[in-house]
Amino acid sequence: MNYNYAAVVLAAGDGKRMKSAHSKVCCELLCKPMISWVLDACARFGLDDRHICAVLSGKDDGVKELLPEDMPVALQNQRLGTGHAVQMALPFLQQMQREGVTDVCVLYGDVPFLDEDTLRDALFTHRSAQNSVTVLTAMAEDPAGYGRVLHTGNTVEIVEAADATPAQLAVREINSGIYWFRLDYLLAALPRLQNDNSQGEYYLTDVVGMTKDLDGTAGTFLCRNTDSVLGANDRKQLAALNEIARQRVFDKHYAAGVDIPCTDGVMIGPDVVIGPDTRIYPGCILMGKTVIGNGCIIGPSTHVVDGSVGDGSIVDFSRVESSVVGKACRIGPFARLRAGCTVADGVKIGNFVELNNSTAGDRSSFPHLTYIGDADIGENVNVGCGVVTVNNDGQHKYRTVVEDGAFIGSNSNLIAPVTVGGGAYIAAATTVTRDVAPEAMVFGRVRQTEMTGGARGRIKKR
Amino acid sequence: MNYNYAAVVLAAGDGKRMKSAHSKVCCELLCKPMISWVLDACARFGLDDRHICAVLSGKDDGVKELLPEDMPVALQNQRLGTGHAVQMALPFLQQMQREGVTDVCVLYGDVPFLDEDTLRDALFTHRSAQNSVTVLTAMAEDPAGYGRVLHTGNTVEIVEAADATPAQLAVREINSGIYWFRLDYLLAALPRLQNDNSQGEYYLTDVVGMTKDLDGTAGTFLCRNTDSVLGANDRKQLAALNEIARQRVFDKHYAAGVDIPCTDGVMIGPDVVIGPDTRIYPGCILMGKTVIGNGCIIGPSTHVVDGSVGDGSIVDFSRVESSVVGKACRIGPFARLRAGCTVADGVKIGNFVELNNSTAGDRSSFPHLTYIGDADIGENVNVGCGVVTVNNDGQHKYRTVVEDGAFIGSNSNLIAPVTVGGGAYIAAATTVTRDVAPEAMVFGRVRQTEMTGGARGRIKKR
Amino acid sequence: MNYNYAAVVLAAGDGKRMKSAHSKVCCELLCKPMISWVLDACARFGLDDRHICAVLSGKDDGVKELLPEDMPVALQNQRLGTGHAVQMALPFLQQMQREGVTDVCVLYGDVPFLDEDTLRDALFTHRSAQNSVTVLTAMAEDPAGYGRVLHTGNTVEIVEAADATPAQLAVREINSGIYWFRLDYLLAALPRLQNDNSQGEYYLTDVVGMTKDLDGTAGTFLCRNTDSVLGANDRKQLAALNEIARQRVFDKHYAAGVDIPCTDGVMIGPDVVIGPDTRIYPGCILMGKTVIGNGCIIGPSTHVVDGSVGDGSIVDFSRVESSVVGKACRIGPFARLRAGCTVADGVKIGNFVELNNSTAGDRSSFPHLTYIGDADIGENVNVGCGVVTVNNDGQHKYRTVVEDGAFIGSNSNLIAPVTVGGGAYIAAATTVTRDVAPEAMVFGRVRQTEMTGGARGRIKKR
Repeated sequence: MNYNYAAVVLAAGDGKRMKSAHSKVCCELLCKPMISWVLDACARFGLDDRHICAVLSGKDDGVKELLPEDMPVALQNQRLGTGHAVQMALPFLQQMQREGVTDVCVLYGDVPFLDEDTLRDALFTHRSAQNSVTVLTAMAEDPAGYGRVLHTGNTVEIVEAADATPAQLAVREINSGIYWFRLDYLLAALPRLQNDNSQGEYYLTDVVGMTKDLDGTAGTFLCRNTDSVLGANDRKQLAALNEIARQRVFDKHYAAGVDIPCTDGVMIGPDVVIGPDTRIYPGCILMGKTVIGNGCIIGPSTHVVDGSVGDGSIVDFSRVESSVVGKACRIGPFARLRAGCTVADGVKIGNFVELNNSTAGDRSSFPHLTYIGDADIGENVNVGCGVVTVNNDGQHKYRTVVEDGAFIGSNSNLIAPVTVGGGAYIAAATTVTRDVAPEAMVFGRVRQTEMTGGARGRIKKR
Repeated sequence: MNYNYAAVVLAAGDGKRMKSAHSKVCCELLCKPMISWVLDACARFGLDDRHICAVLSGKDDGVKELLPEDMPVALQNQRLGTGHAVQMALPFLQQMQREGVTDVCVLYGDVPFLDEDTLRDALFTHRSAQNSVTVLTAMAEDPAGYGRVLHTGNTVEIVEAADATPAQLAVREINSGIYWFRLDYLLAALPRLQNDNSQGEYYLTDVVGMTKDLDGTAGTFLCRNTDSVLGANDRKQLAALNEIARQRVFDKHYAAGVDIPCTDGVMIGPDVVIGPDTRIYPGCILMGKTVIGNGCIIGPSTHVVDGSVGDGSIVDFSRVESSVVGKACRIGPFARLRAGCTVADGVKIGNFVELNNSTAGDRSSFPHLTYIGDADIGENVNVGCGVVTVNNDGQHKYRTVVEDGAFIGSNSNLIAPVTVGGGAYIAAATTVTRDVAPEAMVFGRVRQTEMTGGARGRIKKR
Repeated sequence: MNYNYAAVVLAAGDGKRMKSAHSKVCCELLCKPMISWVLDACARFGLDDRHICAVLSGKDDGVKELLPEDMPVALQNQRLGTGHAVQMALPFLQQMQREGVTDVCVLYGDVPFLDEDTLRDALFTHRSAQNSVTVLTAMAEDPAGYGRVLHTGNTVEIVEAADATPAQLAVREINSGIYWFRLDYLLAALPRLQNDNSQGEYYLTDVVGMTKDLDGTAGTFLCRNTDSVLGANDRKQLAALNEIARQRVFDKHYAAGVDIPCTDGVMIGPDVVIGPDTRIYPGCILMGKTVIGNGCIIGPSTHVVDGSVGDGSIVDFSRVESSVVGKACRIGPFARLRAGCTVADGVKIGNFVELNNSTAGDRSSFPHLTYIGDADIGENVNVGCGVVTVNNDGQHKYRTVVEDGAFIGSNSNLIAPVTVGGGAYIAAATTVTRDVAPEAMVFGRVRQTEMTGGARGRIKKR
């Protein structure tokens, strides 16, 4: 790929008002850090990791861990303004210039809704108009506090709210702070930035005003959707962004035929896929790379992270983690699939059942109060109530195998490693420590002894 | 009953924009198909099933299954407009005429909030005014896209939005598409419908314009509540209808003294009954014919379908299906009553307990980790933790009986069919395979053997 | 403390429109009775219980139980208006006068948002202006139904809505019904109240109009926040107050750095403390004196009442009651801590596990399907799946002790009273009835017996 554009993502803010031990860009929208939203949009736009430079604070604030390993990083150890932050990326910008990059976008790790279409259309405008700098702008319902964008003749001027006249304050077009720059223009402008202002900071905005001196031209690109340039400074604003993100995701799924009769408590991650005719009940949290098929019923109160659920399955009051559920399965209420489970079609996992790192074949049934860990269960296996695979002896973990058509009686224990052959029958309350042959019947329990009458009087005094 | 009115319900739409494999009229509001809302309103209005004709698509789209068996059906195999749909019901209309019906209402399977009062009041107006056709109208906040209703002198004219002048577009009174017809007028008008329009369809609306030719009169009935004529074309609109339905139900219960401190995630079906002083916490889904008594606490996160809960009971984080719970019971958290359970007063069903097709007498207690299936438990029975009724031997299901005052020790198994007599005492960890006499004490477990010291070194190597 | 002010709280209303068996003041906001909100505000303002007189109905309506034992009470057996209610408190007021109290506030048990700052600032105004009576007023968005406050020259007049002219109805400043009185003025005015009005009631409002006769002065104190004087007459209004209370609590926690990405179904009591960087998922109900540390993840669907959760712990789909959870613990999904549990740091309580009245040391693990009741579990103890502490023999409860580093195999029963020594190893499926020495290995189960082939045919016919 022969890139001729690149991006600088500013991610050095500390987000004091978030009251967080981490950087503001680590704060999450729909369980995904804001900076990951930005980087994902860059990737969909067509930038690979090596063409993005993240400007970090140099503190251990959790951002570095969220970046791809091969992404260039610049450190801004002092917080001296956005212009200063971009100055820190100077080596990256020079390297990009050597590689033939002509345009660079500066964007923010805490402005999560900037999307690939906006990046692309803004770049198109930027190049078509042969701008030195293109300011991404938006129409704000309430522009209070934002820099206003003034179009006078061919030039663009940005007036900070504090310096604006009443007439200028009436302008609703605001500066997002996001720019496309011609790289040569930016490299020429960066060293000229001054900090002769009340905050003593270097403002990237000032680059827009240098076009006259540097013989450049400034233009604007008005974002279609004001949300594209929204940020969050505190937890309440973050909640508002979450709400915007939630509603967008709902609209996408409504259009795709998903039935969400009441969205209360429903959070669906931006990367989740759901088929038509599936109903999502209140209180469902579907995150990560989760995929839900057609005609399913999910919820109420179900949490799926990186899970896959096949067509026509029902999952309620349950938690599914990094597992695959087949078609026409019945999971829950009150079931849990821990990481690494694969369950075939028509499987029933009922109340108070945990599967962990296990597989189950078609039509097998685990209706109640069971723990299946590190096990491979065949098809048409019936597992009674209270069955436990004893996979851990306190030192090691072992696997249990149950072959097709076996019947595991209630309150049995399968002490791993052990194999129960196909069609075998384990009587209730048996502890199985050795392999069971196919079609064998196994039992191992104490006969009941009865002492007639006076039951309560016989209770051992202690 | 001597009916002189009838109804035709149009239910042949495919609801392409719902992206559903089923007809649009099958889409649900508060877990009840839209067409069932309409048919229930017709029933409350006083129409029996034989006086309603449903016009279906002829496809296997799920509608037929929702209709009462004795309801007449007409098929509209081609989608040629609402007039064509009613034409398909011609045999039904002729039959109704023979039976003395004088007026017929045409309504829609996907306009779910049309209520019996509106049907009745509109019929009253229709007859009082001696109209040939009465158009049900509504005042729309935003009439965009709807046909406008024009009153000029004694006549009514309906102008489609596409054909309306700006002055006409300013009219906010809209045509709902629902009509009361004099049956003889409708029978005269139906054959005259033309499809000489851009869509090539037969519009029922045109019947209104035939009054001059057919020497009839047209009038209107303005619905008090605009919601009455709302429909849904896509999933987002369906969600909006769900929200209207939810709020209506809440208002009804608020007025009846139900305490719903936060309605988030609460969905209460239209037919659910709840007593005063009962609190409903967030995340509760109460559906079907559910009845909740006075002074209960339901939720959070509780799902009741066709369940009954007596006065003063508490049910939280639980699921109750087609079961009856008595007064002053404590159900949950994390309990499940499956279909066919009847639980008397003062019963405790605690965490991780499932009852299935069973009964329990007054003051019996199942505090934890228990499965009671196909069992009849008497009064004052104490069931320990981990007890399992082994009701299924892999081939048949059997019942378990536990008589009054018995004590079932923890981790016991009751292998059905088996009876434990009144006042009997089953020691913990006993597997009961034979009937136990009243007042008997039963045990059956292995004495512990101790190997002194070096425990970890003794773990069998595998 | 030398008080010179006191309060009378009117709490005799029956709240017929709430449809409740209890008094209206018992209705709850965020699970706390309205009158408790009022009394807590009085306490924070600086009033001790002996300086507050509650006027009750004399019926068994649930209010008395909510009052501190030493709080004076007056009974209003007949409902003859607010003036009559305060007349019932006459002995209290006379006693206060003897104790040197100079000013008294009359407020309402069902106006829950009146806060200590308002009480204090209003008293300051009352005294600074040397008023005989100070009316607490508020600016209402919709003043319909409220008495309007008219300022004419130096005097204040209150006009009931029913008696107001159109010009007066346009006034948005309303009478809250809450007053600060000079005690001597109130004592002089109370006997003069007349009931010569359409309702035949004695109105406290009339005291404001007596300043001329009694040579007093009336003034007003405008509450900054209209919510401060809101009441609720029915369940829907109560729900609206709940919503105001919820949002206030959210705002407080947002400001403190708590991450609540979606507040749906979240109810947080007014006295709950939450640390920064903690995330609260939908469906969480946190009530009472609950304290949550920093960096925790709570929810979804978690209910904590009077619980404490240490820094960095995760609690989901669980219920915690009057228990203490340490740092870095993993609780849930589907776990329950009943009253009286104390769990140290790094403890894991997994799915379908109940702890009751028990302790657990650092790093102990209860991953699945376990009941621990009346037990003291040491550090680094591993409890297998299905383990039950048999703490109840049907007559008495006994404690179980498991010392540090022991391993309790799956489906074991520990029959209390019993002690398992440090480092001991209980093999799976063992029932432990006698104390186990440290480092001992204990087993007690039946060897499996196998009958070869034809398993299904061997199932006992019954």
